[in-house]
Amino acid sequence: MSLLVVGSVAFDSVETPTASRDNILGGSAVYFSYAASFFAPVQLVGVVGQDWPDEHTRLLRARQIDTSGLQVVPGAKTFRWRGKYLPNMNDRETLEVHLNVFGDFNPTLSEEFRRSPYVFLANGSPVVQRRVLDQMNGPKLVVADTMDLWIREQHDELMDLLKRVDGLVMNDSEAKLLTDDENLVRAGHRICELGPKFVVIKKGEHGAMFFADHETYVLPAFPTANVIDPTGAGDSFAGGMMGYLAQRDDFSPQTLKEALAYGILVASFNVEDFSLDRMLQIDRPDIELRMRAYRRMLSF
Amino acid sequence: MSLLVVGSVAFDSVETPTASRDNILGGSAVYFSYAASFFAPVQLVGVVGQDWPDEHTRLLRARQIDTSGLQVVPGAKTFRWRGKYLPNMNDRETLEVHLNVFGDFNPTLSEEFRRSPYVFLANGSPVVQRRVLDQMNGPKLVVADTMDLWIREQHDELMDLLKRVDGLVMNDSEAKLLTDDENLVRAGHRICELGPKFVVIKKGEHGAMFFADHETYVLPAFPTANVIDPTGAGDSFAGGMMGYLAQRDDFSPQTLKEALAYGILVASFNVEDFSLDRMLQIDRPDIELRMRAYRRMLSF
Repeated sequence: MSLLVVGSVAFDSVETPTASRDNILGGSAVYFSYAASFFAPVQLVGVVGQDWPDEHTRLLRARQIDTSGLQVVPGAKTFRWRGKYLPNMNDRETLEVHLNVFGDFNPTLSEEFRRSPYVFLANGSPVVQRRVLDQMNGPKLVVADTMDLWIREQHDELMDLLKRVDGLVMNDSEAKLLTDDENLVRAGHRICELGPKFVVIKKGEHGAMFFADHETYVLPAFPTANVIDPTGAGDSFAGGMMGYLAQRDDFSPQTLKEALAYGILVASFNVEDFSLDRMLQIDRPDIELRMRAYRRMLSF
Repeated sequence: MSLLVVGSVAFDSVETPTASRDNILGGSAVYFSYAASFFAPVQLVGVVGQDWPDEHTRLLRARQIDTSGLQVVPGAKTFRWRGKYLPNMNDRETLEVHLNVFGDFNPTLSEEFRRSPYVFLANGSPVVQRRVLDQMNGPKLVVADTMDLWIREQHDELMDLLKRVDGLVMNDSEAKLLTDDENLVRAGHRICELGPKFVVIKKGEHGAMFFADHETYVLPAFPTANVIDPTGAGDSFAGGMMGYLAQRDDFSPQTLKEALAYGILVASFNVEDFSLDRMLQIDRPDIELRMRAYRRMLSF
């Protein structure tokens, strides 16, 4: 089944303790789309400026990602982010943000995209996320991401959104902020009470936690010695997870757990190089190979 | 098979964001012994002062822990530690340390204890740990713990010790300090190169990692909403792990992984109350029940 993602498309400049890259392909919708494309047909909705090179679009199209929803605004500039990772490669500092065209992002979906059964609302204003949801034509599963900015500055709008989504994906510090609870197990269940049927809390190098009614579990990250750039790990996690759900066209507890594991594995590839570079080198069999190692790791 | 532990026996005063306790039973050898006693007969070696109440010894003896190696020094005081946990319940501040009798700890083992096949050198000076090792009569498996203080201040002595132990257990920040590497996967393998056949890195609420030649895995912590006091989590983890190995009298890769899981589960009980209070309420069937839930959590 097809999977719609609405989110940012960006040029990133990334500094890590050992290397740096300028103006590389990034953005939540880009990482998500590419990761999901290993599993299911993806429809990308985003906005870029005139500075956007065709080669980036071609790269996405080569994975059968439908880019007809990628709006190009003439005379405008694409969203740019510059960040720096601390030595632990988990915490980062944002050095510059230029929203550019993304600041006025107000997507109108095509008739075809409105019928997509699987929807991921990547990190963005809950107002924009709601407007996307309003256009959807009875989707089967809607999952959203969010961030500290919206928790702090658009709290009511976020609360309204949470009542309308099936799942929420967020990172650990955001879950603590949203619930004012330092215990992630309690935090996860409290977020479920705000509306979503399930909540996934991403813990970076420590894996991910899943919460639903009477259900709590944690899966560890796949241990990799080769962390080059963690940018997009959360979005490629979500892409792997949602891509697998869309492929299976099922979101039973068992399938959700498998999806979480696929998300973890796709993210573990993504962090092994800058931008999409590592994901460009792999295909589904590489993911399956790592899945076998992951299952072995967790059985005793 | 019997399991020898040499380490601290203490009175702890613990403050958490929601509660505090003064002068409660603690110390690495105490937490370790109690946790291990669910699995195997334990021989405890430690030192206390005249202020040590008999009831604490009786509590340990009630679990068949051999306390004949617990030296009582007349006219002296027991080791005391006071600490405060930050709201995240993972990081803590030491407010007071009074080594008292533990400052001169220089144990002489009985003939019986020297023949113990399984040995755990709880956190302590590597000089004392080596002296204990010198007295042992061909043990099958020796595992040590250490801490930042010894990594910084007795580095050479610690390096010598590492060449003589089979396993090392330490926490994540200590592993990073010892190797000057922020990536725990690389850090774990580097520590293996210093001598130990295997290394376990404890990550607190994020579980534990295991490293041996060509082997790396991570098991997550058992998710609990009810973290009351994390003191002793690392030692009860080590106790559960070593107790299981001693019971099985085997340390093949498969048994080691099971042992790691038992360590994680015993620690997950321990943090649910102050001192030994939660462990006092359980027995082996409770651990097995949680093990079934843990195995379910990790299968998909």
